[in-house]
Amino acid sequence: MQDEEGEDNFSEWYNSIIEKTGLSDKRYPVKGLNIWPPYGWKLMRNVDEIIRKHFEEKGYNEVYFPTLIPQGQFNKEAEHIKGFSNEVYWVTKGGDDELDEKLVLRPTSETAMYPIFSLWVRSHSDLPLRIFQIVNTFRYETKQTRTFIRVREIHFIEGHTVHATFEDAEGQIADDTEIWKKIAEELAIPYVMGKRPEWDKFPGAFYSIGVDTFLPSGRSLQIATIHQYRDNFSRPYEIVYTDEEGNRQYGHQTTFGISERLIGAIVGIHGDKKGLIIPPSVAPIQVVIVPIPGEGVGEYSRSVEEELKRNGIRTEIDFRDQYTPGWKYNDWEEKGVPIRVEIGKIEVSEQTVTLALRTGGKKKVPRKEIVESVNQVIEEMHDLLKKRAEGKMKGYVREISTIDESRDLMPNSIYWCGSKECADKIEETGKSILGSYDGTGKCIICGKEGKRTIISKKY
Amino acid sequence: MQDEEGEDNFSEWYNSIIEKTGLSDKRYPVKGLNIWPPYGWKLMRNVDEIIRKHFEEKGYNEVYFPTLIPQGQFNKEAEHIKGFSNEVYWVTKGGDDELDEKLVLRPTSETAMYPIFSLWVRSHSDLPLRIFQIVNTFRYETKQTRTFIRVREIHFIEGHTVHATFEDAEGQIADDTEIWKKIAEELAIPYVMGKRPEWDKFPGAFYSIGVDTFLPSGRSLQIATIHQYRDNFSRPYEIVYTDEEGNRQYGHQTTFGISERLIGAIVGIHGDKKGLIIPPSVAPIQVVIVPIPGEGVGEYSRSVEEELKRNGIRTEIDFRDQYTPGWKYNDWEEKGVPIRVEIGKIEVSEQTVTLALRTGGKKKVPRKEIVESVNQVIEEMHDLLKKRAEGKMKGYVREISTIDESRDLMPNSIYWCGSKECADKIEETGKSILGSYDGTGKCIICGKEGKRTIISKKY
Repeated sequence: MQDEEGEDNFSEWYNSIIEKTGLSDKRYPVKGLNIWPPYGWKLMRNVDEIIRKHFEEKGYNEVYFPTLIPQGQFNKEAEHIKGFSNEVYWVTKGGDDELDEKLVLRPTSETAMYPIFSLWVRSHSDLPLRIFQIVNTFRYETKQTRTFIRVREIHFIEGHTVHATFEDAEGQIADDTEIWKKIAEELAIPYVMGKRPEWDKFPGAFYSIGVDTFLPSGRSLQIATIHQYRDNFSRPYEIVYTDEEGNRQYGHQTTFGISERLIGAIVGIHGDKKGLIIPPSVAPIQVVIVPIPGEGVGEYSRSVEEELKRNGIRTEIDFRDQYTPGWKYNDWEEKGVPIRVEIGKIEVSEQTVTLALRTGGKKKVPRKEIVESVNQVIEEMHDLLKKRAEGKMKGYVREISTIDESRDLMPNSIYWCGSKECADKIEETGKSILGSYDGTGKCIICGKEGKRTIISKKY
Repeated sequence: MQDEEGEDNFSEWYNSIIEKTGLSDKRYPVKGLNIWPPYGWKLMRNVDEIIRKHFEEKGYNEVYFPTLIPQGQFNKEAEHIKGFSNEVYWVTKGGDDELDEKLVLRPTSETAMYPIFSLWVRSHSDLPLRIFQIVNTFRYETKQTRTFIRVREIHFIEGHTVHATFEDAEGQIADDTEIWKKIAEELAIPYVMGKRPEWDKFPGAFYSIGVDTFLPSGRSLQIATIHQYRDNFSRPYEIVYTDEEGNRQYGHQTTFGISERLIGAIVGIHGDKKGLIIPPSVAPIQVVIVPIPGEGVGEYSRSVEEELKRNGIRTEIDFRDQYTPGWKYNDWEEKGVPIRVEIGKIEVSEQTVTLALRTGGKKKVPRKEIVESVNQVIEEMHDLLKKRAEGKMKGYVREISTIDESRDLMPNSIYWCGSKECADKIEETGKSILGSYDGTGKCIICGKEGKRTIISKKY
């Protein structure tokens, strides 16, 4: 809610709008477990479809692995376990029986998948192996929870790959970066992407790339991660292949994770004072028709609805008779529907329709050009949302040249030499170093040559 | 596998074919938790899409409720609890902490949803409420497990509705019956559908309708259930609405459940000695092109692939050079791909393609009619599979007039008066009464007027 300053204002707006519009229902009696009502779930599924399409285009195959992981299998990679053991749920009983071996609810699926990868991968001809799944994962979250952003049951998209060499795995990371670009483009979400500092990498990873966006509160939101595992997991899980010379070699692995946080990003980045603005690419309803009672309006509206639907445009018509057209306008604006089609007596007699854009403005178009007009508006609105979001993000991130200037809640762009010592001083501000990006300059602490980085308070 | 008689033969064939073709990988180290590899998961997802379409057409909205249900919430309906308490998994720990309240992994979602339904339903204008979800559910199964048929993590589709009156709920059951008919039609699965005996109803239901099909082993497989709950759940969960006169009334509820058992049914019903036969409607690959090396074959095959894909036909091309065309034919037949397109020098010079049908027979068609020809074969094959499957099912169910004739493993059609006493005598055969269907005759035990029923050994 870029019109109101400050974290509390944003938080309040965010929490209220996602419930009012039916993106989430937070009344489930366990903290951090929320319900996806129809409108929210449809949005999530539309986002999933975009992710699925781009993963499949780059050669990933979709699979489904079990949710429950036996303790022994979970415990094989030491760093990984250290990172997760405090935040997993344990299944210890079946009926009245104590289980012989406790089961973890997957917090992520490395330890479910990799013992099986060691059976799937035998020879260099089995590589690369690229799979992904769209699943529910679980974290026993002790921090404050926040819908879509920090929850205990997470809607999670996870890609896992195995390659013959470290270089092949690096090539996969380049591919994943391409996939991410396309997804972000379709959601009109601006972001920064760079290597996380050593101490902030994924447990068990060789290095981690974080993708962050910024919400109007000033906080950064990690919305995707890509990890290079090298052979850190293939060794304990024995993912071994025979190379062309007949030698046994360990595989090299990468992962790519995306979650329901994308919904939080869509809400926070595109919304305004009136409510949600959902990019047409993923909007559950792209067009809502609001008939203004009058002769011939019902039939005319139906024919518009029918034509839009036939052309693949997600359309609803609002015939509720207990509400005025004005009330309905507000209602659909709050829900973030990109285009409202207003049809009254005038439109019927003129053979036109009025398109009201959620991003502002109206235009009257001939009835017979409705499909082209709507498609054109969809395209233009997407570009506008993208540009606006990029502008907002630029506005949030302030460049500073001394660390004392970092007193407010907003993120800063600085240079950093890469040392832990300087990092500790930087992070005394309460803000974290997100990663390293293109550009060099003098370290804000020691003055030595450094890389551009962004520091922020994180969600 | 209708060519081999007997349960053991079928079981062996079933277990081997689903692993060999990549429908399932059973090497996960927990009994009853299997992996869905790409081919199997794609088939499941295609089936899900058909189910989703028919649910949505009848006014159901898709949602997603949490997996974890607090013990107190789970324990509210006594019959339901009695039915499930021996077979649920309990989450008792988060990290190192004992949870204050234990959590159940949903075995089905009545107890997750209904406390929230009591918030969603306020007035008669909120009704009917119709939602469904496609989720993973869990049963701590102590019996022998069998892929797709009896597993511990179940891919489950569950519809839940609330209505103002019992009659409205009965109307929903008629709608669900329609939905089921359409799904079964699209999968070419024959079935019988009828009320379960009183002692075999769903825990908490007023009555249950079971949908069963029969596998070549002779056993029946329950592939869908529709339940009338009346107000059995709305009372303990306080799902109450205000009627038009302002009186508080309990809602009346139904549920509709379908699971991954449909995949077991597809495998068992349509398969033959050579392997799977997947109905084209849900086949992950509808057409596989096998080029027979020769001049111009590669390019010609690519253009066929491109045209089929462009027309929405799920097509793959098999260019693997380590295998002969003959080996590939067997491989794709085993995987149940409906149509193989053979392209060699002759086809190129004639500007034709050869279509080999998984159900038998070949036909040569002009290159430029490829799309129409494939679509026609798909349609005809669907009808053939349906007819064959119906024929097989009729063959399995033998009509008998004395209970002594019920000695083999196959199901029987009988008449039954409806009494528990006669049922006990009938079930001494080791076969269960599935339900009541159209048709009346003399009870096979007492000779009184009875309804037609089928008895079988159940999976």
